[in-house]
Amino acid sequence: MAGADIGLIGLAVMGQNLVLNMDDHGFTVAVYNRTTARTTEFLDGRAKGTKVIGTATLEELAASLDSPRRIMMMVKAGRAVDATIGQLAPLLDEGDIIIDGGNSHFEDTSRRARELRERGLLFVGAGISGGEEGARRGPSIMPGGEKAAWPQIEGILRAIAAKAKDGTPCCDWVGPDGAGHYTKMVHNGIEYGDMQVIAEAYHLMRVGLGMTYPEMAGVFCDWNEGLLDSYLIGITADILAHADEQGRPTLENILDVAGQKGTGKWAVLSSLDLGRPMTLVAEAVHSRVVSGMRRHRIEAAEILGAKAGRLADAGEGFVDAVHDALYASKIVSYAQGFMLLKGAAVEYGWDLDYGSIARLWREGCIIRAAFLDDIAAAFDRRPDLPSLLLDKFFIDALGRAEAGWRRVVTAAVGIGIPVPAYSSALAFYDAYRSERLPTNLVSAQRDYFGAHTYERVDHPRGEFFHTDWAGTGGGAISGSYQA
Amino acid sequence: MAGADIGLIGLAVMGQNLVLNMDDHGFTVAVYNRTTARTTEFLDGRAKGTKVIGTATLEELAASLDSPRRIMMMVKAGRAVDATIGQLAPLLDEGDIIIDGGNSHFEDTSRRARELRERGLLFVGAGISGGEEGARRGPSIMPGGEKAAWPQIEGILRAIAAKAKDGTPCCDWVGPDGAGHYTKMVHNGIEYGDMQVIAEAYHLMRVGLGMTYPEMAGVFCDWNEGLLDSYLIGITADILAHADEQGRPTLENILDVAGQKGTGKWAVLSSLDLGRPMTLVAEAVHSRVVSGMRRHRIEAAEILGAKAGRLADAGEGFVDAVHDALYASKIVSYAQGFMLLKGAAVEYGWDLDYGSIARLWREGCIIRAAFLDDIAAAFDRRPDLPSLLLDKFFIDALGRAEAGWRRVVTAAVGIGIPVPAYSSALAFYDAYRSERLPTNLVSAQRDYFGAHTYERVDHPRGEFFHTDWAGTGGGAISGSYQA
Repeated sequence: MAGADIGLIGLAVMGQNLVLNMDDHGFTVAVYNRTTARTTEFLDGRAKGTKVIGTATLEELAASLDSPRRIMMMVKAGRAVDATIGQLAPLLDEGDIIIDGGNSHFEDTSRRARELRERGLLFVGAGISGGEEGARRGPSIMPGGEKAAWPQIEGILRAIAAKAKDGTPCCDWVGPDGAGHYTKMVHNGIEYGDMQVIAEAYHLMRVGLGMTYPEMAGVFCDWNEGLLDSYLIGITADILAHADEQGRPTLENILDVAGQKGTGKWAVLSSLDLGRPMTLVAEAVHSRVVSGMRRHRIEAAEILGAKAGRLADAGEGFVDAVHDALYASKIVSYAQGFMLLKGAAVEYGWDLDYGSIARLWREGCIIRAAFLDDIAAAFDRRPDLPSLLLDKFFIDALGRAEAGWRRVVTAAVGIGIPVPAYSSALAFYDAYRSERLPTNLVSAQRDYFGAHTYERVDHPRGEFFHTDWAGTGGGAISGSYQA
Repeated sequence: MAGADIGLIGLAVMGQNLVLNMDDHGFTVAVYNRTTARTTEFLDGRAKGTKVIGTATLEELAASLDSPRRIMMMVKAGRAVDATIGQLAPLLDEGDIIIDGGNSHFEDTSRRARELRERGLLFVGAGISGGEEGARRGPSIMPGGEKAAWPQIEGILRAIAAKAKDGTPCCDWVGPDGAGHYTKMVHNGIEYGDMQVIAEAYHLMRVGLGMTYPEMAGVFCDWNEGLLDSYLIGITADILAHADEQGRPTLENILDVAGQKGTGKWAVLSSLDLGRPMTLVAEAVHSRVVSGMRRHRIEAAEILGAKAGRLADAGEGFVDAVHDALYASKIVSYAQGFMLLKGAAVEYGWDLDYGSIARLWREGCIIRAAFLDDIAAAFDRRPDLPSLLLDKFFIDALGRAEAGWRRVVTAAVGIGIPVPAYSSALAFYDAYRSERLPTNLVSAQRDYFGAHTYERVDHPRGEFFHTDWAGTGGGAISGSYQA
C-alpha cells in the first residue's frame, strides 16, 4: 500500500480545513490529534467520504507516510510546538520534513530549524494567513526555513494556496530560518494598520459627518471598486450594511473594545529592535489597547468632556478626502512594513524578494488587495528600492492624495476625533522627506548633559565634536552617560 | 583600623564622580577598577587629597570594608555586571550588599536579586540619573531590590543624592526586584519624549516662523520662568544662544542625526508588552531612528519635495500656542509614563508610591522640572488616581492649553512640518476621553474573518456573540484564527 502524501497534526478548525483543502487537490492526508476523539469526530463528520486517513498515535502517523515524510503541525504556537516536535522527531528519519503552519514567533522558528538541522531533519516555518476560510479554500502561505525541503513540499503547498487573478499560487519560498514566519508577522502588523485606517474613516463618517449606516456602506462599496479594492474594505461594506432583527445596524450593538492576539505587537517590537519604525501599526496596536481602557474612557469622557461633534469642514468632497487619507496612510504603512522586511534581511542575513512577498499577499490573506500588484511592480522596477515612498507610482499617488489627507487630519484635530493612524503616517511622511530635521537640537542636548559629542554638517560622518555649552569646562568623554 | 564605609567598582567618569560625591559627604570609599592603572590615575589625580582608598584586587576591596559590606558597581550594563557579580559574590558574607548603579535592564536586576538572595546576599538595583554632573553634585537615585538592604545604604545614598528645593533628597526606596531600574527606564523614556517635544517647538519656530536663534533662545528663557520651568528647557535656551567663533549659531553646525543608547526603546517595548501605551515616547524613539535615515531623507526631499515653509497661521500668539502644545503633550507623556508604572506594579506585584517617584525626579536628573511637584500633588490628592489626565490640576491645565495645541498641530499638518509627538499625544488625549471609539468595527471585522466573536453594548462583559456576516453560515469558533 502506498503511503499518505502528507501528515497533519492538530485538528482544530485551521488544521481540519487545510486537510480538506489538501484532499480536494488529490493528496492523501494522514491526520493525528492529541485527543483521538477529535480525529474520530472529524473522520465521521467533515472528512467523511474523503481519502483522509486517521491515526491514533504519532508512531502510526509516521508509519503511514512515504519517504521523505512530510508532516505539517497545526498546533498552538509556543510550548505545544516544542513538545510536539520533541515527540515526533525521534520517530523520523534523516531528510524528513516538519512544517510548522502555526503562528510561531520567527525566533522560535529559527531556533527549531537549527536544532532539527543537527538531527538531520528539515524544518519549515510556514506563515499561513486567511483564517478558517482561507485554510479551506486557499490561504496565502509564506514558507521559510530549510530550503532543501522546498522541492518536496512545493507541489502540495502551491496546490492548496490561493491563486492570484493571473493564476499564480500565493505561496513561494520566502527565505531561511524564520523568514516565513517573520513575513507573516509583518503581514499581521500591516493587517492591524489596515483595520485601524478603516476604523478612522468610519469614525469620521459616523460622528463627524453624521452619515447613516446605509450611506457608509455605500461609500465602502464604491471604494472597493477603486484604488482601495481589498478584502477588508469589502467586508467593512458588508458589516456596515448588516442589520439586526429590529432593522438596526448590527455594528451599533457591538462593544468598542477590540481584542488582539499579539502578532501585531510582535511586529512593532521587532520594528523597534531593528530601528525600522512601523509608526502606523504601532498606533493601531495602541488604539486597541486604549479601546480596552473602557472604564477610564467613560470616566474621562465625563470629566474632560467628549468634544467630538460634527465637522465644520464637512463640505464638498470631504468623503473623497477621507478616501485619500486612508489610501495615503495605507501607502505609508506598507512602505514601513517593507522597510522593516529590508531591515530584517540585513539583520538576519536573509535574501528576500520583496516583489514576491507582495505577490504572496494578493489573495488568500486578510490584507489581500489590488494595491499589492502596484507594490510588486515597484520592486520589479527597482529591486533595491529603499522605500516604496521613493517609487514613481507611489510618489504620484501620494501627491494626488496629499491635500485630502492633510484636510482630514486638520479637520479631525479641530473637532477632537482621534486619527492616530492618519496623523502618525503623515508625520512620518513629512519627516521622511525632510532633508533637515530638528534632531540637531537633540544631539546638542545629549552633548550638553552627557558629553555624548555630535557630528557636524561641515565635516565627514564619523568625526565627533563636543561643545562646552554651559562654559563649565567639562571634557568630552563620550559614552559615559547611558540614555 | 576602621574599614571603609562603601566600596565602588568601576572608575569610569560616573563611578569617579560618585566616589568624589561620597567623599564630599564624609564617607570613606574604597575603590576598585579592573585596570589598576585607572585606579592609580584617579588616586593621583581627581581623588588626590581625599580619603579614597585604592585597592588592586576584589579580595583587597572586600577586606577593606566594614560589615555588612556595601559595594556599588558602576560597570557597563550587561555581561560585565554578571561577570563582576560572579567574581565578587564568593568574597562576600551573608548580609553583604551589592548595589548595581548602572543602567541595567530591570529584568536582569530582578534575576540577579533572586540569584543573590539564594546566596544570602542583598542585591539592590539603583537607577541613577543626572549624567556626570549629577553623579558629582547630586543625582536622582531610584533604588529597588532587597528592602532589607535599605537601612544599611539609605544614609549614604540620600546624602549624595540631589536635594529638592524643600531639602528632601531625591532618593527613596522604590520597590522590590527591578522596580528601581524599571523606574529609571520609564524616566529615560520620558526624557526622550521631553527632548522630542522641545525639538518640535524648535522646528516650528525656526522653519515655520523663521525666527532667529537669539529670538528662539529668548523664548526658551521665558518659558523656563513659567509652567515649563525645567532643566531641559534651560539647556535648550543655552544651546540656542551659543555661537561659534564666527558668531554663527553653533546648532546650525550640528548634524540632525541623533543617537540613542536604547533605554528609551526599552520603555516603549515594556509599554507594548504591558499594554500601557507610551505613544509619545514611541514617536520620540521613532524620530531618532528617522533622523538616522539621512541618505534616504535627502533622496526623498529631492523627489517628494520638502514642502515645509513658513506658516500661514503665524499670527498673534502662535509662539504661545507652541508653548501650550509642548506643555499639553508633556502632560500626556507623563500621564502615559505613570500609567505604565501602574501597569508594571500590577504585572510584577510591586507596591509603588507614584507621588514619591515623581518627587525623586524633581532634582538631579535630566527631566527635573517644577512640573513634578504638580504630579506628586495629584497622587497625594488621590493615591489610586488611574491617570494624571483625570486629576483636576491637569484637567484645568489641558483645558487651557487645548486650543493652542490644536492650532499648532493643525498649522504644522498644513505646512508639512512633522510634529509626531504633539499629534500622537493629541490623538491619545482624544481617544482617552472618547466614551465610544470606532473599535466596534475592528471587533466586527475580526468576527467576520476569524469568528473571534464580540461583546455587545447591551449585554454584560464576558458574553460573546457571533454574526454570520456574509451569510455563508460559518460557525462561531473562537480563537481559531491567530491575529
